[in-house]
Amino acid sequence: MTFKLDNRLNNDCFKLAETEKSLWLLLNNSHFPWFIIVPKTEVEELYLLPLELQAELQKQSSLMSEFVTSHFQCDKLNVAAIGNIVKQMHLHIIARTETDPCWPGVVWGTEFKKEYEKNKVLEIQTKLKQFCQHKIITDIEFAPLQ
Amino acid sequence: MTFKLDNRLNNDCFKLAETEKSLWLLLNNSHFPWFIIVPKTEVEELYLLPLELQAELQKQSSLMSEFVTSHFQCDKLNVAAIGNIVKQMHLHIIARTETDPCWPGVVWGTEFKKEYEKNKVLEIQTKLKQFCQHKIITDIEFAPLQ
Repeated sequence: MTFKLDNRLNNDCFKLAETEKSLWLLLNNSHFPWFIIVPKTEVEELYLLPLELQAELQKQSSLMSEFVTSHFQCDKLNVAAIGNIVKQMHLHIIARTETDPCWPGVVWGTEFKKEYEKNKVLEIQTKLKQFCQHKIITDIEFAPLQ
Repeated sequence: MTFKLDNRLNNDCFKLAETEKSLWLLLNNSHFPWFIIVPKTEVEELYLLPLELQAELQKQSSLMSEFVTSHFQCDKLNVAAIGNIVKQMHLHIIARTETDPCWPGVVWGTEFKKEYEKNKVLEIQTKLKQFCQHKIITDIEFAPLQ
């Protein structure tokens, strides 16, 4: 299957890593540790994914959640598949804190936007790489940042 | 385990049904077909649930998604675990349409609120009951509406 990342996700995010079944992105908004998993599928709704892909996505979501809560300040995770604007299936995993600018509201549609400095993104990717090594996850490729 | 539904969920929702592992609620806002699954757990984050409960929740979420898309107009499902305000774990499953008052924004925090008429809630519960019968799902109890 030829998989092409949606243009908007491609423009708004850094590609951190790729697995056989997904891409792992970081939204370019440093107000929030905001990660996105994009399963390589043309299906747009979670419940329509084949069961083994649902299970794989759940597994990756848990892994990403563990990474996020262990490496960032986090009072509550927000985990969501929305897709009203970008139809390509993607799962948001966001670390929320009681001091972030949207708390306790949700972050989708927020006007609070602040681009990352590139060294910060490299630092986050390095942490993710170390986390995966520690978890002995080897079937993942870390992307050169652009 | 004694499980008690969070007061806010209890006040804002109709309890439609109960399974061994969860409650199924309908938010009392007729602008959106907005269902909520509450797993019977004290854990607040999905990734901290025991794996078999994660799988069970995924299964129930898919079932509810199928019900929602087959019985309501739906251009996109929104599926999310947020919990910034109500910490008790709960999963939103919402049918969104391009003509609903929040589209394409998200519905959390919306000022568009409209209570259901009771017969409409009964009608929705009856549809859910028939759907479960059709799916030969028997380990579920439908609650008397209050």
